[in-house]
Amino acid sequence: MRNDYLHNKKSINIGFVGGGSQSSIGLAHRIASRMDSRYNICAGVFSQNKTKSKNIAKKLGIINNRAYSNYREMAYREKLRHDGISVVSIITPPKSHYEIAKCFLDQGYNVICDKPLTQTIEQGQRLKLLTKKKKISFCVTYNYSGYPLVREAKELINRGKIGKVINVNVEYLQGHIVGLNKKNIKKRLNWRSKNSCGSLVLSEIGTHAFHMAEFVSGQKVKKVYADIESNFVKNIDDNANILLRFSQGAQGFIWVSFSSVGGESGLKFRINGTKGVIEWLQDSPNKMKLNLYHKPLQIITRGSNFVGRSAQLTTRISKGHPEGFFEAFANIYSDFAKYMQEDNPRLTLKLKTFPTIEDGIRGLKFIKASKKSHATKNWINI
Amino acid sequence: MRNDYLHNKKSINIGFVGGGSQSSIGLAHRIASRMDSRYNICAGVFSQNKTKSKNIAKKLGIINNRAYSNYREMAYREKLRHDGISVVSIITPPKSHYEIAKCFLDQGYNVICDKPLTQTIEQGQRLKLLTKKKKISFCVTYNYSGYPLVREAKELINRGKIGKVINVNVEYLQGHIVGLNKKNIKKRLNWRSKNSCGSLVLSEIGTHAFHMAEFVSGQKVKKVYADIESNFVKNIDDNANILLRFSQGAQGFIWVSFSSVGGESGLKFRINGTKGVIEWLQDSPNKMKLNLYHKPLQIITRGSNFVGRSAQLTTRISKGHPEGFFEAFANIYSDFAKYMQEDNPRLTLKLKTFPTIEDGIRGLKFIKASKKSHATKNWINI
Amino acid sequence: MRNDYLHNKKSINIGFVGGGSQSSIGLAHRIASRMDSRYNICAGVFSQNKTKSKNIAKKLGIINNRAYSNYREMAYREKLRHDGISVVSIITPPKSHYEIAKCFLDQGYNVICDKPLTQTIEQGQRLKLLTKKKKISFCVTYNYSGYPLVREAKELINRGKIGKVINVNVEYLQGHIVGLNKKNIKKRLNWRSKNSCGSLVLSEIGTHAFHMAEFVSGQKVKKVYADIESNFVKNIDDNANILLRFSQGAQGFIWVSFSSVGGESGLKFRINGTKGVIEWLQDSPNKMKLNLYHKPLQIITRGSNFVGRSAQLTTRISKGHPEGFFEAFANIYSDFAKYMQEDNPRLTLKLKTFPTIEDGIRGLKFIKASKKSHATKNWINI
Amino acid sequence: MRNDYLHNKKSINIGFVGGGSQSSIGLAHRIASRMDSRYNICAGVFSQNKTKSKNIAKKLGIINNRAYSNYREMAYREKLRHDGISVVSIITPPKSHYEIAKCFLDQGYNVICDKPLTQTIEQGQRLKLLTKKKKISFCVTYNYSGYPLVREAKELINRGKIGKVINVNVEYLQGHIVGLNKKNIKKRLNWRSKNSCGSLVLSEIGTHAFHMAEFVSGQKVKKVYADIESNFVKNIDDNANILLRFSQGAQGFIWVSFSSVGGESGLKFRINGTKGVIEWLQDSPNKMKLNLYHKPLQIITRGSNFVGRSAQLTTRISKGHPEGFFEAFANIYSDFAKYMQEDNPRLTLKLKTFPTIEDGIRGLKFIKASKKSHATKNWINI
Repeated sequence: MRNDYLHNKKSINIGFVGGGSQSSIGLAHRIASRMDSRYNICAGVFSQNKTKSKNIAKKLGIINNRAYSNYREMAYREKLRHDGISVVSIITPPKSHYEIAKCFLDQGYNVICDKPLTQTIEQGQRLKLLTKKKKISFCVTYNYSGYPLVREAKELINRGKIGKVINVNVEYLQGHIVGLNKKNIKKRLNWRSKNSCGSLVLSEIGTHAFHMAEFVSGQKVKKVYADIESNFVKNIDDNANILLRFSQGAQGFIWVSFSSVGGESGLKFRINGTKGVIEWLQDSPNKMKLNLYHKPLQIITRGSNFVGRSAQLTTRISKGHPEGFFEAFANIYSDFAKYMQEDNPRLTLKLKTFPTIEDGIRGLKFIKASKKSHATKNWINI
Repeated sequence: MRNDYLHNKKSINIGFVGGGSQSSIGLAHRIASRMDSRYNICAGVFSQNKTKSKNIAKKLGIINNRAYSNYREMAYREKLRHDGISVVSIITPPKSHYEIAKCFLDQGYNVICDKPLTQTIEQGQRLKLLTKKKKISFCVTYNYSGYPLVREAKELINRGKIGKVINVNVEYLQGHIVGLNKKNIKKRLNWRSKNSCGSLVLSEIGTHAFHMAEFVSGQKVKKVYADIESNFVKNIDDNANILLRFSQGAQGFIWVSFSSVGGESGLKFRINGTKGVIEWLQDSPNKMKLNLYHKPLQIITRGSNFVGRSAQLTTRISKGHPEGFFEAFANIYSDFAKYMQEDNPRLTLKLKTFPTIEDGIRGLKFIKASKKSHATKNWINI
Repeated sequence: MRNDYLHNKKSINIGFVGGGSQSSIGLAHRIASRMDSRYNICAGVFSQNKTKSKNIAKKLGIINNRAYSNYREMAYREKLRHDGISVVSIITPPKSHYEIAKCFLDQGYNVICDKPLTQTIEQGQRLKLLTKKKKISFCVTYNYSGYPLVREAKELINRGKIGKVINVNVEYLQGHIVGLNKKNIKKRLNWRSKNSCGSLVLSEIGTHAFHMAEFVSGQKVKKVYADIESNFVKNIDDNANILLRFSQGAQGFIWVSFSSVGGESGLKFRINGTKGVIEWLQDSPNKMKLNLYHKPLQIITRGSNFVGRSAQLTTRISKGHPEGFFEAFANIYSDFAKYMQEDNPRLTLKLKTFPTIEDGIRGLKFIKASKKSHATKNWINI
Repeated sequence: MRNDYLHNKKSINIGFVGGGSQSSIGLAHRIASRMDSRYNICAGVFSQNKTKSKNIAKKLGIINNRAYSNYREMAYREKLRHDGISVVSIITPPKSHYEIAKCFLDQGYNVICDKPLTQTIEQGQRLKLLTKKKKISFCVTYNYSGYPLVREAKELINRGKIGKVINVNVEYLQGHIVGLNKKNIKKRLNWRSKNSCGSLVLSEIGTHAFHMAEFVSGQKVKKVYADIESNFVKNIDDNANILLRFSQGAQGFIWVSFSSVGGESGLKFRINGTKGVIEWLQDSPNKMKLNLYHKPLQIITRGSNFVGRSAQLTTRISKGHPEGFFEAFANIYSDFAKYMQEDNPRLTLKLKTFPTIEDGIRGLKFIKASKKSHATKNWINI
């Protein structure tokens, strides 16, 4: 079980760039970092306006002179402190990720970066080179991979429980474009679209679905065939049906949508194998269906004594007490903390239980290939 | 409400060709025909062996000299009787549908035929010509369209409840190939495959999913892009992921599978519109989800006083008492009986609430286009 | 599997008393009797008005001179025919059950009788004496015990799968009193109340819940402590909370209600044992939950190859194709047919898989004890 | 929406007594207090052994000289600090609650106390007198009342949405006694039993169910009739079926159990009113069923824009992202913080959205009345 005092390390000093507005993304990252007492939030750029940044920092319990309005200043100043931050969490819009991450990597900070990683594949690859060169740890917050039963699904598949994977079906359905009728919402969408990576629905939720498909199945997507549509706002795609083929031959399908009323955050996967099927959906994250050949459907419950080690390690409370989004998100943060603090060559090979910069780059490749497939009506390799 | 004595017509004399084995298909058709007292089962070809056919007939309460071993004989002899059958139900393997149906159409019988209609599109079209020429009623048993809430979904969409349809997602998942390990099962599959229409999974369940997609949405599929795979037995496909585009622009996706453990008869549809989403699955057929913009999810229950006329007419018992597969199947039979008995030009235009020979032909076109798409890696028009 | 031609016996000639109105009860009994071709409906009293009875009979395919307006006449006349009925099904209001059943028993007919059996325990016991004296088969239609998975639950418990039974929780919730505001509905309720056995909610649904409690657990209720309330119409009870203690010590609870909005026919049981828990609800009758100590929750599906013999025998179609209310009801009819046709001393001991007159009498005892308990605020023995 | 920087107050210094073991209760309280940045955990008694307490404190980021081994010492020493704690959270076994709470109340600290409040009603009342005398805020952590949709249910009922409440059904089912076979587990149970309030199942979960019944319905239980049983360990009750009557006439029922395999933390309520029914269960806490007369069942989702103010205020993330146990628990802590920091006579009357010492006392009365009822076989007033 994950516990706030089962670890022996001091908590890590962390700073945030972004998340200052009332958006939920900042809140989610802060709650996630606080949950297991693994991090101290002690610095941040919460606004480019100094006064605003200081006001927000105050409410978050950050002392006045560590509230910055410029990330370069934070990178520079924190280096000078004996109690300076050692990791930065970048939760600004994707457009700015590259510059900010590069700045902090250059100065040797570990980095947590929201997804999508950057706007282009090339930017992502340059960051990756930097992390290698400087031996820096880098985490991309594909937060849904933090759910204990998602880990359990991965572990079961890896152990061969459902045989050879033959079909991977992932959905991420939301409905927030439907009903859209106000000019300022369109503006907001256009802004988000420009700040993303060429496709709004693929950047914001498609990359989550794609990461889930690869993470759980343990296989890489080889090629995609995409059919994408803009149903509400011109040039802002809101629904994508994407065929997949994996490197070991499995078929697959990703359905992501902003135009599915009532499907708010309906992230779901169903993995078919030659011996069984595993199904999980975020809406009911503490249960997972396991269908094995000639056996009754089994409902695996988070916290059960028969779940594997990876699910046990990411669970905080006994079964029946529901865990949710924040707890899954906190698992990403805490896994990354654990990795940073126990860093040594031997562990490196084994313990990257958090999503890496490579995962971030694959997300960008997925977006690019899907768009090209839609445009050319061809299967495109990733 | 559907009731066994709300109609004023005499019950219709019906004969069966096929369904004599212990397979469930014969049983389903017989229960369906009996349920509302709309038909008398009074003749049949239950085996090509005279003795066997008579033995089965006896158990079904059919008198000895109306148990035939040859369908041509039945077609001829029943014509001579004053109490002869006026409709035949053909539930043999698809390969034989064309010859049998042609024989009965030639002699002026009304026909109920199991799906897929025939082995080729051309055969289907020839039968269609015959029905027009002879003004004969013809029903293809896409039985899943008989569920009251499937009718309700169609009616709601037709009334514009969910706005313009933008995405149609249909699944039909079964798992009966998984675990396959005995030679005789492979033989049986090969036999079924040869008797079907070129693709086992598309013939047996793909056509059901396709009919559902068009029936509920009220729109025609314009083209398909298919990815089909054989995971267990060489050349017998068991999993298909098929992108759809409808004539009015909507996207769509059909997933049919014989290799989904635990997904036994998991027929499901989700129709996204610009104002809402409708979702239904056969596993829980007396409930339907209706998600409308900015409203709580509504669960529509069969038998509720707020469902529309088409669902009311196909319901037999008050809400809370579950109806199922046989009741839906019986709705097809009883709708067809109602149509035959009230046949007149005015009604013809309105009341074909059962699946027609045209639906049967479209199913064959779907199979052909899907196979061609998979082979050529192109979108293929239907 | 149950099949319409797996039996070798001729179908049984049956007559109905009641069910002539458009109420669903008549329809349910007729569909149930027809489903497996075990009975021919060939006579009936559908109204006390001769013309009306004949009109209804005609629609049901019954010949003119076997449509009676008086049950005594039917009992007498059918005896004189070589093809006369051998069993009568009584589906009139409970008040008249005793007189009608007595009449038919006196003349040696087998009897199917709707529940509650009679208005008083004494009447029930007199009928029971008659059946013994005349060696007549008698079935009381506690139809919910016909669901295959209810049979499976009984079999699992009987085999000790969940250990010793320690708590039996049964609910039957309906909402049809809520919203009651028209005078004629009150009249109708008063009529139903007068025709029942002293308590409307206990007569109509309480007896079903009670029978389920004893049927599934395989144990007899020893005593009850009841709290009953009339929330909508004076003196017509609509909600009862009843504590149970079983003869072998288990605790129990029955909640029956007419005032639970949305709980239409929400029949449900949860049986706790020392090693596991079984849960089933009518709303989803093809699934059953089985929770065993230290194992994942198992969902048992009707039609699975791992369900026991009693569930297999009462199933008509493969898993995934939902069966429902009518199929369960038909199991009662067909089990009774099987029993009557294979009647011999050895079988008698074993094969009463249908609810008997003794079950009918226990239902009456349950009503009486519950009412007395509520009045005296004491536990009352049954 | 609840947010970590929507408040303007400094975070409150808090100390813990208990929770030092690896039990989940300490973790839950700490995560709950940290989630919204409303509290600083800066002191604690984590063990009666000084070294152990300091070790644990270190891991929790508490400085060395504020890790105590004696609660009286903590109460005394913290008073002397300018940055001393102003509130203590007592999460020791119930037996010790009275002495510890009294000590801190005497010295003017605000108190958060786990449930059940104390071992006797008299102790509870003495503490209540102290809070009044000293105008001290006191919170009892009936944490389940912190779920946003539990608040929504209360608000809907209060606004008359389901009419007059007529039946309140609450369950809390767990299975942790089943399978009990080791001596040390029995020892542990005996220890827990001795440390509780006379009935293990009523103390540990019965009080939660009882609080939920009163909290959501907005009505007080007038009397109880209880049937309690010990099925596994002699004199340690594990299953209770309890009839309720509320002061305004409504019926009710509480089922609490330690012997329900698979029912881990199955807290559930169904409230029947004259116009509708509300149903919620902890297992799926982000959904709530609302059944209104002659309307489709509505599924209310946490975070929807149509939920009321009390649910909005206790929600942190948009709908579709599941919140769970810790978030609900944090709502209790944060509501109490808000109350303490905005304390003024006008607010006091309105904003006690957290469970109070009066709620704690009622829980003790419920236990006592239930035990007496079981012993005397009479309804007992609370």
